[in-house]
Amino acid sequence: MPPREARRIFREGLATGTSGWARGYAQMNLLAVPEDWAYDVLLFAQRNRQPCPVLDVTDAGSAVSALAPEADLRTDLPLYRVWQDGMLVDEPTDVVRHWRGDLVTFLVGCSFTFEFALRQARVPLRHTEQGRNVPMYVTGRECRSAGRVHGPLVVSMRPIPEGMVETAVRVSGLMPDVHGAPVHVGSPADLGIADLDAPDFGDSVDAKHGDVPVFWACGVTLQAAVMASKPPFAVTHAPGHMFVTDTPDSAYRVG
Amino acid sequence: MPPREARRIFREGLATGTSGWARGYAQMNLLAVPEDWAYDVLLFAQRNRQPCPVLDVTDAGSAVSALAPEADLRTDLPLYRVWQDGMLVDEPTDVVRHWRGDLVTFLVGCSFTFEFALRQARVPLRHTEQGRNVPMYVTGRECRSAGRVHGPLVVSMRPIPEGMVETAVRVSGLMPDVHGAPVHVGSPADLGIADLDAPDFGDSVDAKHGDVPVFWACGVTLQAAVMASKPPFAVTHAPGHMFVTDTPDSAYRVG
Repeated sequence: MPPREARRIFREGLATGTSGWARGYAQMNLLAVPEDWAYDVLLFAQRNRQPCPVLDVTDAGSAVSALAPEADLRTDLPLYRVWQDGMLVDEPTDVVRHWRGDLVTFLVGCSFTFEFALRQARVPLRHTEQGRNVPMYVTGRECRSAGRVHGPLVVSMRPIPEGMVETAVRVSGLMPDVHGAPVHVGSPADLGIADLDAPDFGDSVDAKHGDVPVFWACGVTLQAAVMASKPPFAVTHAPGHMFVTDTPDSAYRVG
Repeated sequence: MPPREARRIFREGLATGTSGWARGYAQMNLLAVPEDWAYDVLLFAQRNRQPCPVLDVTDAGSAVSALAPEADLRTDLPLYRVWQDGMLVDEPTDVVRHWRGDLVTFLVGCSFTFEFALRQARVPLRHTEQGRNVPMYVTGRECRSAGRVHGPLVVSMRPIPEGMVETAVRVSGLMPDVHGAPVHVGSPADLGIADLDAPDFGDSVDAKHGDVPVFWACGVTLQAAVMASKPPFAVTHAPGHMFVTDTPDSAYRVG
């Protein structure tokens, strides 16, 4: 299915996770904030590039991104979250009535893109095999702050067969714009994660015998920063309900 | 020579190009602008990441970068340029008396870092062989603008033996934070460059028989944007007189 067709279906109201949709095209995290918060957000992203690789930023009030010029950022994602003072106040399928002329929208790389490369390298993805969303965890590591914006590092976790960890590290490492190599392999406790079976976002996933937990920086770090930093207003995608772009996943592989 | 020692010598007043100094450590382009211009500059860099890979941004007024925490950004480069309304007004060896409490400093990746990788791959560098600065050219390509900041793409050019162009593309492509793969191989006219012997910055360089001109995006693009966009005040490094960091060149290679 071409990205344009996927976006049309979401625009018409289907509220579904986007994993597996328009396969081969990059999907993005979305965060829109009032213009007077835009510098702090952009600087936070620059200072925390592994979780927050910014791949496009709109002009204030514009709902159009260079990553999919025909798309409307207010309607073409399947599910949004609306935030006031860091509190979730709505989870609508479009944000037309919430939109403001001063919103600057950030589009941020997503792990779905390196999963494309992991699949090509025949690295098994347990959450996909099990029909679940990837598990995500708030870690004990604080990001480098920027002005008013601060918050913890959020990671996604994939159980990987021990013999394939090196492949997974190498393959994702060639995609620095979509989180790059893992931030940690092995002990969840080293990241301050108490219980792998209780993710903060997404679903828990069953490891197979011989799997090792591998942790990648996650774009939901920006959503955690909204919760911690409490801008007066913000819009994000709902986790797993991403913006489908016209840019091929392969565009974000170097070398 | 360790980076700290190089910076000490520059701090004491030696105004020399930094090519070959503290070999193995990354050098950076520097641009400082008043805080009310910082968002436009950061957004311009995000929208033009190949010429302008931002690797650190200070808080307003701070002269300290995470890339070399002991260094003083006002004194530790060998030569600076001071700009008013887009015009060059001074070229001092330190900017202590020009410094302002509202300056935000951007540190941007430099091609010296991928030259380290080219040398390791035994790609000859003609400008180095000839003891010259790399030639840089203002192209006919306009960067994507951001608010008040706009300007042309500036490129650096290295003549490369035809049989080694593929190696040069591959090796630099693995360093996306320091301009990555070339933007063009071959015809200068395709970039709007009329005469390779008349660079806009740096020195002209003699190609050898069988060499092909290879063009990389260049951090001087930011300086050209200052000249075109005319912020009321700005400080940059003088071309070729970079900020020597404590970060190894190899930190910017992926894969």
